[in-house]
Amino acid sequence: MATTTTLTGQPLDRPSLDTLLRRRLFYTPAFEVYGGISGLYDYGPPGCALQANIIETWRKHFVLEEDMLEVDCTMLTPHEVLKTSGHVDKFADWMCKDPKTGEIFRADHLVEEVLESRLKGDKEARGQKVEVDEEKEAKRKKRAKTVPATRLDDSVIREYEEILAKIDNYGGEELGLLMTKYAIKNPSTNGDLLPPVAFNLMFQTSIGPSSNLAGYLRPETAQGQFLTFQKLLEFNQQAMPFASACIGKAFRNEISPRSGLLRVREFLMAEIEHYVDPEGGKKHPRFQEIKDVELVLLDREVQLAGKTETKTLPIGEAVSTGLVDSETLGYFMARIHQFLKRIGIDQNKVRFRQHMANEMAHYAADCWDAELLTSYGWIECVGCADRSAFDLSVHSKKTGAPLCVRETRSEPLKIEEWQIDLDKKKFGPRFKKDGKAVETAVEALSQSLREKLSIDLREKGKVEVEVSSVGDGKVEIEKDLISIEKRTRIEHVREYTPNVIEPAFGIGRILYSLLEHVYWSREGSEARGVLSFPPPVAPTKVLLVPLSGHSDFKPLVQRLSLKLRKLGISNRVDDSSASIGKRYSRNDELGTPLGVTVDFQSVNDNTFTLRDRDSTKQVRSDEDTICSAIKSIIEGQKTWFDIQQELPEFTQQETD
Amino acid sequence: MATTTTLTGQPLDRPSLDTLLRRRLFYTPAFEVYGGISGLYDYGPPGCALQANIIETWRKHFVLEEDMLEVDCTMLTPHEVLKTSGHVDKFADWMCKDPKTGEIFRADHLVEEVLESRLKGDKEARGQKVEVDEEKEAKRKKRAKTVPATRLDDSVIREYEEILAKIDNYGGEELGLLMTKYAIKNPSTNGDLLPPVAFNLMFQTSIGPSSNLAGYLRPETAQGQFLTFQKLLEFNQQAMPFASACIGKAFRNEISPRSGLLRVREFLMAEIEHYVDPEGGKKHPRFQEIKDVELVLLDREVQLAGKTETKTLPIGEAVSTGLVDSETLGYFMARIHQFLKRIGIDQNKVRFRQHMANEMAHYAADCWDAELLTSYGWIECVGCADRSAFDLSVHSKKTGAPLCVRETRSEPLKIEEWQIDLDKKKFGPRFKKDGKAVETAVEALSQSLREKLSIDLREKGKVEVEVSSVGDGKVEIEKDLISIEKRTRIEHVREYTPNVIEPAFGIGRILYSLLEHVYWSREGSEARGVLSFPPPVAPTKVLLVPLSGHSDFKPLVQRLSLKLRKLGISNRVDDSSASIGKRYSRNDELGTPLGVTVDFQSVNDNTFTLRDRDSTKQVRSDEDTICSAIKSIIEGQKTWFDIQQELPEFTQQETD
Repeated sequence: MATTTTLTGQPLDRPSLDTLLRRRLFYTPAFEVYGGISGLYDYGPPGCALQANIIETWRKHFVLEEDMLEVDCTMLTPHEVLKTSGHVDKFADWMCKDPKTGEIFRADHLVEEVLESRLKGDKEARGQKVEVDEEKEAKRKKRAKTVPATRLDDSVIREYEEILAKIDNYGGEELGLLMTKYAIKNPSTNGDLLPPVAFNLMFQTSIGPSSNLAGYLRPETAQGQFLTFQKLLEFNQQAMPFASACIGKAFRNEISPRSGLLRVREFLMAEIEHYVDPEGGKKHPRFQEIKDVELVLLDREVQLAGKTETKTLPIGEAVSTGLVDSETLGYFMARIHQFLKRIGIDQNKVRFRQHMANEMAHYAADCWDAELLTSYGWIECVGCADRSAFDLSVHSKKTGAPLCVRETRSEPLKIEEWQIDLDKKKFGPRFKKDGKAVETAVEALSQSLREKLSIDLREKGKVEVEVSSVGDGKVEIEKDLISIEKRTRIEHVREYTPNVIEPAFGIGRILYSLLEHVYWSREGSEARGVLSFPPPVAPTKVLLVPLSGHSDFKPLVQRLSLKLRKLGISNRVDDSSASIGKRYSRNDELGTPLGVTVDFQSVNDNTFTLRDRDSTKQVRSDEDTICSAIKSIIEGQKTWFDIQQELPEFTQQETD
Repeated sequence: MATTTTLTGQPLDRPSLDTLLRRRLFYTPAFEVYGGISGLYDYGPPGCALQANIIETWRKHFVLEEDMLEVDCTMLTPHEVLKTSGHVDKFADWMCKDPKTGEIFRADHLVEEVLESRLKGDKEARGQKVEVDEEKEAKRKKRAKTVPATRLDDSVIREYEEILAKIDNYGGEELGLLMTKYAIKNPSTNGDLLPPVAFNLMFQTSIGPSSNLAGYLRPETAQGQFLTFQKLLEFNQQAMPFASACIGKAFRNEISPRSGLLRVREFLMAEIEHYVDPEGGKKHPRFQEIKDVELVLLDREVQLAGKTETKTLPIGEAVSTGLVDSETLGYFMARIHQFLKRIGIDQNKVRFRQHMANEMAHYAADCWDAELLTSYGWIECVGCADRSAFDLSVHSKKTGAPLCVRETRSEPLKIEEWQIDLDKKKFGPRFKKDGKAVETAVEALSQSLREKLSIDLREKGKVEVEVSSVGDGKVEIEKDLISIEKRTRIEHVREYTPNVIEPAFGIGRILYSLLEHVYWSREGSEARGVLSFPPPVAPTKVLLVPLSGHSDFKPLVQRLSLKLRKLGISNRVDDSSASIGKRYSRNDELGTPLGVTVDFQSVNDNTFTLRDRDSTKQVRSDEDTICSAIKSIIEGQKTWFDIQQELPEFTQQETD
């Protein structure tokens, strides 16, 4: 894996970033005073504000601009719903247990880890440079055995690399075979492991006092949205297409959480369910607006060949060549791309990867993940799946509730079809208790069978029908009981189950990737971390710093703070005794884009300096001008560059 | 219970309101196609937007204006944390089981329901008018037996009324006694019930693959905040007082959910933990700003006397007379009051009720609930509790983590105290294996005991100390092993555990109460429901209606819609074929405060009419003027009254 670089091209030093994020309380392991629970994190004030700003941008970008119907569904979900959706049976990872030590491993992660270790050992044996992944290294140190530097055959290296390229594509049985073939054991004891078994990733609980209503914490917000489909369609005055959206927590009982915010047990999702008519190629009315957006694509075929080469294409072309299945899928991929750009994701660190067949969720017909490059590798941050009619169909079938669109045809449809009439009076005496089963079997006959049977009936005076539950599975029906005729039926209403295109955002993963993408170090006597958030998502917009603790400064600082708040601009006063330079450094780490200094001149003439986080340049002007400059930058009407042209630079003040 | 009235003084017709809320999809029972799960509701688009607007107002009112530290903590919480906080042992309701039918009742609700039924039966027997609570009536109909109209003794009536007035004050044993005394049985079968047993209200689950880490869904957001205290204090640069805040879901596994959104199993909370120095009377620096706010108070003494009379007082007076315990508690009560006013809660339907001793949560030292009057009676919507140092102390004691403030004293403190010196060399030979226990017991001696023992030592040459684990529980220590002297110690740092004032908001309850408070019916050929939300919380701000489906209107509607969105104003187009009047009626039900009609004149001269929801009056002006009028109303700078003065009234259009 290539070394990740920062915004300014330096190698990304993850331990420094981690230290910064902890020090500034972006997030912190939950329940740390109790020793912590892996996979659970709390967001501190800057992380919480960043998350809220990302969500607000998301709401504007999707819910408001696309006129979506936002809903808030419950997390507690009864067993039956998730049984029907397939999650009870299929939402699982493969785990292996060491019968001696009781340790539990996630099978695919274990295979990945062991093969990577061996490849590393091979490189060492060959005297090649080895890149170190700090986190994996730390884990490895905890386990007792270190893999000795052993040289591997070239053919083995190729095998390993091929397996690693498609590690997400293996099921439990295949993982078990790989573990046997490559002698993969418990890395710390070298003990044998039991074969992989499925572990369901949902948290289970029971609802109500009698303990007999099993439930789960939702693994996605989608199911709640699907079950509300009919009501939303009615709310939308039966107009199609439309989308619902839901922002809320979902849960996965990960076998072994790792990689900080990237694999956690409780996480914030923002999901869209866009309902589209499956007829006519799933067109999207606004596709023209985004057809020229260029996306970096890694398709299924390339991955199955064990490679990772991407192509860069306008989405219009990707859809017209069939690489991306439909306009609607393509539309949302482009909109996802625009959203990521809007919040400050590095455009060189985004790609869309198509799922391989085995990797796809049980409900998906096609799926492209927006992946972001981080120091942990390419991370799936947004899934964009075509769930077809899977969910609405299974819930409708299970409950009998109509989850479909009924639309009056502009022109009634004439349907020529083979219709069957049964003489039900004679049916009872002839078939006795089997009457109902025979009737059902006859009604289920396909059009082509009906046509064939009509010939039999004419020629032989009877037909033979398969009825599995009766006698030898076949039943003869004579012509006095049945007639089969071709007739014309007129259909005025068309009924169909919409297909669902689902863009699903893992907000925590996006948030962490963003932190890596906007992080860099300012050169100087000592390296200083800076988080260059775009102003709209920055946790705090303005830092207010009085030059010193002088009592004349306090009322000015308070007045400014109140004024900015009234403009809806979040700000923070730092009147600690640290030097101005130190205080600005602290806020560079918090990613505060602008700073205002209150000094003795401010007391005299009510002018203030305004500082830009990224360039550290300053301008000076009167209170109103400074406030409106702030507002225009925060709201995105102007950039710092514009402000620098308008207002005189200020260079006198010592900032260090 | 008095009949509730609407905004305009009509009797509140809850069934009509319920129908409206369902029809307009404010909220809906969750999983309804699966038969529903009681106590779980989904919010549809208008409910979801209303909730988001209430939360946004809350964030501005508290987090931004009070400079609080917002955090986002996990819902999954390990057993140990909630064991320490007392929730595993004490967060329970009392339930009674019918051993024959298996039915489970919540004991206090059952006693309440049965006694109310009997009082109703008595009124019927006396020929008095009986007010009907629709919901309770519906439930009663489901149960088989109806209480016959039986006249009760006057003394029994008084007893029942007294019990009902303090129903929240009874524990399990007392409820059991009441049930025996008043022969309270299963209302549908008249079968005997088992005595009340405690039922813990937390949803349990297990975390991780090995099933041995028990966890719960949090019953409040508070514990996560407490455990982050030390980090937040550091983030706040050790400055006190400060507050953290958290908005998120919490869970209660209710025995028998009822009353719609008022008693649910999953709900949104917004909680503040304000940390204050317990010394000096828990003053608040901004108390002066709110001291004249008048609150309606129902204190503990009045309730214990079985009464419900309130007093109306400025909070300054309530604090100075000691009715409300401290400035900080009073400050937040006033701020809660202001918040409720800001979102549109009817000021005549708010009171603050003090908790009775038995009713208080296990952690609370004092507590006032903001209750809102609804057709279900007075509903606790915001708790404002003084949790003292309870939580920080128990977590610190359990884990050994310091959850306290250390502050350098401006002047070092001189402390005169009795100090004990032990000759530890002689201690071992003298007490053998008990040495450590004796030492611990000596060190734990209070100052007054030390003083007394110093006299014994001087007079008798030995002291007697209680050490429960040793021999007969008493140990003699001779003067060669111990000395006790009064000395002066100088303390430079003061260490204390802050007290916590906790305003905790049940957002769903506030939201439902608000719906009742802003609902009224417009007189006319048929009564039409209106929800008069204040513009800032209204789900949608503007309705755009083209006069007809004429194609000339479409581009104007689209342009207006886009323009308003750019101004950050949510709007919805209704271009259905219904009449203008019908479309406006629909949106009165959604509570949309403003409507813009696009008609033929608009096409000619680019003027539009603007309609006010509450008065149905209209004005007409050009596009820019209309847009800026909308903006000023939505942002609260102007009212409809102002706009009516500025712009010409429009009366021509048929709106029905």
